[in-house]
Amino acid sequence: MKKFMNAVNDILNESLRGFAAAHADIVSLHRNPVFVTRAGSPKQGKVALISGGGSGHEPLHAGFVGRGMLDAACPGQVFTSPTPDQMAATATAVDGGAGVLFIVKNYSGDMMNFEMGADMASVANATVVTNDDVAVENSTYTTGRRGVAGTVVVERIVGAVAEDGADLAACKARGERVNQATRSMGVALTSCTVPAAGRPTFDIGEKEMEMGVGIHGEPGRRRVALAPADEIARTMMEAITSDLAPKAGAPLLLLVNGFGGTPLMELYLMYDAARRFCAGRNLTVARSLVGNYTTSLDMAGCSITVSQFDDELIGLWDKPLHTAALRWGC
Amino acid sequence: MKKFMNAVNDILNESLRGFAAAHADIVSLHRNPVFVTRAGSPKQGKVALISGGGSGHEPLHAGFVGRGMLDAACPGQVFTSPTPDQMAATATAVDGGAGVLFIVKNYSGDMMNFEMGADMASVANATVVTNDDVAVENSTYTTGRRGVAGTVVVERIVGAVAEDGADLAACKARGERVNQATRSMGVALTSCTVPAAGRPTFDIGEKEMEMGVGIHGEPGRRRVALAPADEIARTMMEAITSDLAPKAGAPLLLLVNGFGGTPLMELYLMYDAARRFCAGRNLTVARSLVGNYTTSLDMAGCSITVSQFDDELIGLWDKPLHTAALRWGC
Repeated sequence: MKKFMNAVNDILNESLRGFAAAHADIVSLHRNPVFVTRAGSPKQGKVALISGGGSGHEPLHAGFVGRGMLDAACPGQVFTSPTPDQMAATATAVDGGAGVLFIVKNYSGDMMNFEMGADMASVANATVVTNDDVAVENSTYTTGRRGVAGTVVVERIVGAVAEDGADLAACKARGERVNQATRSMGVALTSCTVPAAGRPTFDIGEKEMEMGVGIHGEPGRRRVALAPADEIARTMMEAITSDLAPKAGAPLLLLVNGFGGTPLMELYLMYDAARRFCAGRNLTVARSLVGNYTTSLDMAGCSITVSQFDDELIGLWDKPLHTAALRWGC
Repeated sequence: MKKFMNAVNDILNESLRGFAAAHADIVSLHRNPVFVTRAGSPKQGKVALISGGGSGHEPLHAGFVGRGMLDAACPGQVFTSPTPDQMAATATAVDGGAGVLFIVKNYSGDMMNFEMGADMASVANATVVTNDDVAVENSTYTTGRRGVAGTVVVERIVGAVAEDGADLAACKARGERVNQATRSMGVALTSCTVPAAGRPTFDIGEKEMEMGVGIHGEPGRRRVALAPADEIARTMMEAITSDLAPKAGAPLLLLVNGFGGTPLMELYLMYDAARRFCAGRNLTVARSLVGNYTTSLDMAGCSITVSQFDDELIGLWDKPLHTAALRWGC
């Protein structure tokens, strides 16, 4: 295992400390239990958005704490759910009197712990579950579909409406609608290596790829021969668009997300391939995002996410956003 | 070789096409010869900044085209200098009557071609050469020190003064002063793989790292045993700060740059280690940047850059910046 680290048990603390120091203008790091809040929170009268999950997917979620997106993030150990007491303490810390909305990726551990956290929280709360991954129904750690990079879209759109003053019920409803309008699929060229394990999560041949991989290295649809980028993009886009069935002419968000070990040059090449797929099907790409947003440690690979937008969602997407990982309009 | 690609010869074109489509609000892509300009350029009366070099270091340089930074970027093939005709055509395209400043990383091929390009350019021009890498004097492709991630700092600061109306001589002088106040050093855990070669540029053992590596995989100071992050950061920071010899109390920029295959979690951990080194030496970190800015294809590794700032440079650093890879204040 080749990683920049000191002791395995210190990776999360040291990385979070570095993150918080580098972005002290945007976030505050809390200890015992560990969570990250927006600097200056709570904001009175605003619904507070909290997300979280296992670490190893950076910048998800702490990188999305800030104006126009999350109020707080609860990081668990690598690929391990945060604990209910983390979530309850976070809720207390960021509630501004309008309640908190938990945004949870659909993994059994997260679902169980966020449910307990919601019960323990002493403030009004609701939950949105993301499950955008079309690759498989049920998986190693999931009943139903997995929540993956589409979570970023949900966090951003709900973040925008919460900033505009929407109440808790409206934020929850909006999050569920965006999740329903979002589909993703991933592919791995290599495995990730969990630090505590010290070896790759799965074996994969020099000429193979895992089509439909999960963001913890869970098996996908099938192990297939490495293919040209156009063919990979077509397989993913066909799975996504046949499931999403976007309305003719609807403006789409196209997100190409790196898994951590794939350089930007290849991500833009995959974006180009996905975009040409859209052009060939008369699908309109109205907004784009290319980069590492929901990673899987050091895995080489990427996912594609498509969200069906409308004029209102485009307006919300474009609103001022100021987080460590995404910024525009302010 | 596992990469998202179609044909080796199409990688650059397809990646650039994806980049330009994803950021059509910021950049325009030109063909025959290939270069990337700010959308809406030239800007009359403003000195135009042009950088470029071999591809494979994304987002450098095209990702830094935009308000507050570059006016244009000339991408060469992977790890290969762009050609003089590219540079001359770019200069003509972006000159707004105040001349163009070429910002060139110190590699023999780039130096030769940019010199020819400057001669061929039909507009007033000057050149700033970056050579911030303290690892070695002379190298595989370089006489003197290599220009690496410190180039980003030069491009940003000169971009800010050019935006403010500085003339060509002032932009050149400012670029040279920032370069002189900037030092970097890198370390590789793995090699990169150049697509046309199809195999890793160098062999490295499972428990080895290359200390002082160049951004094309050039040898560094020595091949050493993999060490804890704190020790790696200390070695790099000692080399950087002993060479830079910052004034007591001077505000520093601390940049931890990923080489393409290293996840953000590890980069923030390295930033934390470098920051603790600074705290132990009474060095003041005033501004920070952590991410993939000057990469080496899929290499796992990172570099650290330190620039000695002052109040004026901090003010310039903070000015509105709107590029694909870096945005703040607008």
